[in-house]
Order: sequence, then structure tokens, then C-alpha cells
Amino acid sequence: MKLLRYGPQGQELPAILAADGSVRALSPIVKDIDESVLSPDGMRFLEALDPLKLPKVDTPGRIGSPLGDIKEIIAVGLNYRQHAMESNLPIPLEPVVFFKSTSSICGPGDDILLPPGSTNTDWEIELGIVIGSSASRIDKSEARKCIAGYVMVNDVSERHWQVERGGQWSKGKSFDTFTPVGPWLASASELESGSLELKLDVNGAARQRGNTADLIFDVDTIVSYCSHFMTLRPGHLIITGTPAGVGFGMTPRTYLAHGDVVDMSITGLGTQRHLVRAA
Amino acid sequence: MKLLRYGPQGQELPAILAADGSVRALSPIVKDIDESVLSPDGMRFLEALDPLKLPKVDTPGRIGSPLGDIKEIIAVGLNYRQHAMESNLPIPLEPVVFFKSTSSICGPGDDILLPPGSTNTDWEIELGIVIGSSASRIDKSEARKCIAGYVMVNDVSERHWQVERGGQWSKGKSFDTFTPVGPWLASASELESGSLELKLDVNGAARQRGNTADLIFDVDTIVSYCSHFMTLRPGHLIITGTPAGVGFGMTPRTYLAHGDVVDMSITGLGTQRHLVRAA
Repeated sequence: MKLLRYGPQGQELPAILAADGSVRALSPIVKDIDESVLSPDGMRFLEALDPLKLPKVDTPGRIGSPLGDIKEIIAVGLNYRQHAMESNLPIPLEPVVFFKSTSSICGPGDDILLPPGSTNTDWEIELGIVIGSSASRIDKSEARKCIAGYVMVNDVSERHWQVERGGQWSKGKSFDTFTPVGPWLASASELESGSLELKLDVNGAARQRGNTADLIFDVDTIVSYCSHFMTLRPGHLIITGTPAGVGFGMTPRTYLAHGDVVDMSITGLGTQRHLVRAA
Repeated sequence: MKLLRYGPQGQELPAILAADGSVRALSPIVKDIDESVLSPDGMRFLEALDPLKLPKVDTPGRIGSPLGDIKEIIAVGLNYRQHAMESNLPIPLEPVVFFKSTSSICGPGDDILLPPGSTNTDWEIELGIVIGSSASRIDKSEARKCIAGYVMVNDVSERHWQVERGGQWSKGKSFDTFTPVGPWLASASELESGSLELKLDVNGAARQRGNTADLIFDVDTIVSYCSHFMTLRPGHLIITGTPAGVGFGMTPRTYLAHGDVVDMSITGLGTQRHLVRAA
């Protein structure tokens, strides 16, 4: 099952993407893609529906983030070996974890806005895990039960703010539009996360090519690990780290500029395209 | 005006603390202390009420966090000179910022639960700023307009997880009960934040004594600064750093143990008392 949301920013309506590619309205059935929908019962209820019997949305227009109420964004850093190496940082012995603000969330086709004065804005394609039920101190073997599904995320990062503006990474990662999510949430019952291909291009040139099979800490390990230092709740979004190929790792370093176009795809999770603009 | 919430965890009801010390129910008037209440209009509306005309709550019982919907917790680190020195870390040139999970929020009298195996759980009394209206890239001079009020917070921190478990501080700060908030929100119109005394005792022994006059980066600077890397929204809680006297800075280092009692107070923001328990 693929859940999405369409409409202007802040006024998105919930929908299902049917097998025939049509967008089917969920508004008659649920208020939003929120905590109650993400719960195991909520997901089972929606999966039992026949999307083709729901009203067809002929012109959905803008697609927003498929999640109406992301509680917090928990980010895992340096989770692909080659990316840790290109960042000149050690391969982590356990997951590196930080947060980025939910203020940064936008849709899969929205413009990425360069913060005023930014010259170091970088791209990071990542698999996102959406939590559907509370989890505290769970084992790896229990992780799958807490996952509602998966989304594609760009963990846009301003390297000057992230690295050189005083400790801790959150600062370079929380600007408006720095977390495009979508186009859809693929339910965990539909998508197996172990071997998904990740691709990111800038202006048509290949930049990132990765596969979740190469994650240092896999999806189950990450969920279990995070649940040991905080109670995960429905609506928590965990982004799992980016493969090699970011601008920070290029020689010379190359960052996003006004007018650039970023294209992304992950197996089973659709495509994103962003125009980069000076804010 | 002092706003608070009473009742069992997760079922708290909104109230006002009247000048005579009585708790007055706000449930007939607002659903919760949320975004709409924290807005400038919401605060003005409540401030115009006569609390003594509201129903008296004779036995409020447990007091919870005074905020029903904290969007995210933004934390400023090393913001008192003596605390940076006791931590053997440089005086920051600009605010050090990280996030802690809202999963960690509890009430001002709730037990602090030591995570299983924890031997390095530390205390940190802090002034908390509650944002009432959205703010993006604002000047210091505009900061006050965005502040709904202030709360007392204990930024409980597990130093082993914070420092030795792989980069970034959020990990040691997000356990359940690691962010007691309250007992009340004092409105910005009532409380001037520039010279508030902070006191924290453990088992009756003085541990932290500080004053917000000694903040390296003051309240207006912090709000303005944070608004330059993210859009602040109603319900954002910014905690402003802790003065010297944490267990990590003692010789020998001294941490919380099962059975300890932590007492805290900040001028105008009431008192907190916590029993420390092994989880």
C-alpha cells in the first residue's frame, strides 16, 4: 500500500496510490496520515480497502510529505562505509544519532531553498523509517512490528553550519525545505527494506548510487538501537544515513547553486525532483 | 499569569494558578495548553480572565508538564562560563545547539528513572523558553514578541551515553523522564527573564547555584540565533543551558543513584522535587 498527501503546503489531504497509478481520496475515511493511521490497526484497516472503490482525484496537483504529523526526525549519520570515508570520519562503532527539526519538512517536488548567504548546501538521499507503534528497549527481532512503512528523504545539509558553527550537527540540517519527504509512504507489508537501490543526480549527472544492503547498521538494528535511548512513538521518522557521493566528498567540493535540479529515486519509493532556489 | 496542567500522565487538564494559590480549571474554556493558547492572541485572551471566577480545583493531585504539545526541545549547551569550564570544554563563540526527544518530558514531581545499567545520570537545571508565534530569521529586538513564557526544566543527562556512545549529545538526553518541565508556565508579560536565580540540591546538599544574568547568550540572543537556522513554531521549547555544579564537574564525579532526591527552583517558576529510581 502506498499512502500520499496532495494539496497546498499545510492543507494536504490523505490519499492512496492505486495499482493503476491513480490517486484515490482517503478524506472520506481518515482525517490525515497521522498516528492513528500509522498504527498496526490503522494500516491493516486501510490495506483491507479496495482503492479502486475510493473517489478518484483527477488533478491532485502538488504532492506533499506523505506524513501529516511527523513527531520528530531522528537521523543516523555515517551509516555507509564509503560515505564515512569521503567525510574523513571514522567508521562508527555504533549508530551516530542526531535530530533535525520538523520545520524543515517539505514535499517531494518542492523547491529546495538555499538559506541566505549559504554556499555549502549539500544533498543526502536516505531511506526513512516511519514508526507505527511505541517501542522502548526492544530487540532487533521485534523491530519490524513497530515499523509502519518507508519513505524517501533528502537530508539536505548546510556543511558550513553543520560543521563549523559550533558543535553538534542539527544546526546545518533544520532550515526550511531541508527535509523533502515522499512522494509516498510504502507500507512495511509491501516493501522489504533490505536491498533497495538509491540514486541521486544533480543536473542530470550521477552523484549518489547506493544500496540499503550496504548499510553498516541495518533497519532493524537502527530501530532497536534508538529504542534503547528513547521511547519511539507513532510518527517518529528515522532517516538511516546516506551513501557516498555527496558534494562534501567531491574534489573540489561542489555544492548546490541557484537553478540546480536534484533528481532522486529509491526502489519502490518513487522519485523526487527539486529545483534549487536562493531563498 | 501562571498556566499549569494537572491529572495523570497523558490525561492532564489545563488550569490557571490564581494569585491566592488556588488552581482554577481552564477546561471549560480551552482544550489544552497548546499552540492556540500559546499564541499572542491566546495568551492575551487568558490574561483578560479573572481566575477567581473559574471553577476551583480542590485536589489537583499530580501536576504534569504545563505544556500539552511541545513540538520539539531545542537545547543550548555550555551557556554558562563556569559550566563550560567544569566540563573542560571551550567557552563557545556562538550557541551550541542540539535536540532532545519530547519522549523524555514528564512533570515537576515525577520520579526520574535511571535507565537500566546507567551509572552516570546527571542533573542540569535550566530556564526554558516557550515559543508562542512563528519566527524565522528575526533580530534580537523582535525576540520577545515570539515568546509565550518561561518554564523550569531539568535537562537530565546520562554522561556515558552523551559523551562516549558515538558523537552528538542527543543520545544521553532523551530517555523517558529526562525532561521534567514545570510546575507552571509563567507568561512573558509576567516574568522578566534577565535575572532569575536557579538552585538545585541533591539530598539537601547545594549543587547548582546560578543566575540567568550570567548566561553567555541571553534569551533574546538565543531566540534570534535559533530562528536563523530553523523556523521556530508555537510549542517549541528552547532550554537555555545549565550553570556550574553538575555531577560531571565534581571531584570525584558524582551521579544520581536510586533513592536520591532532587530539589530545584527558579525565581518566579516554582519548585520541582524528584525521587530518583532505578527503572
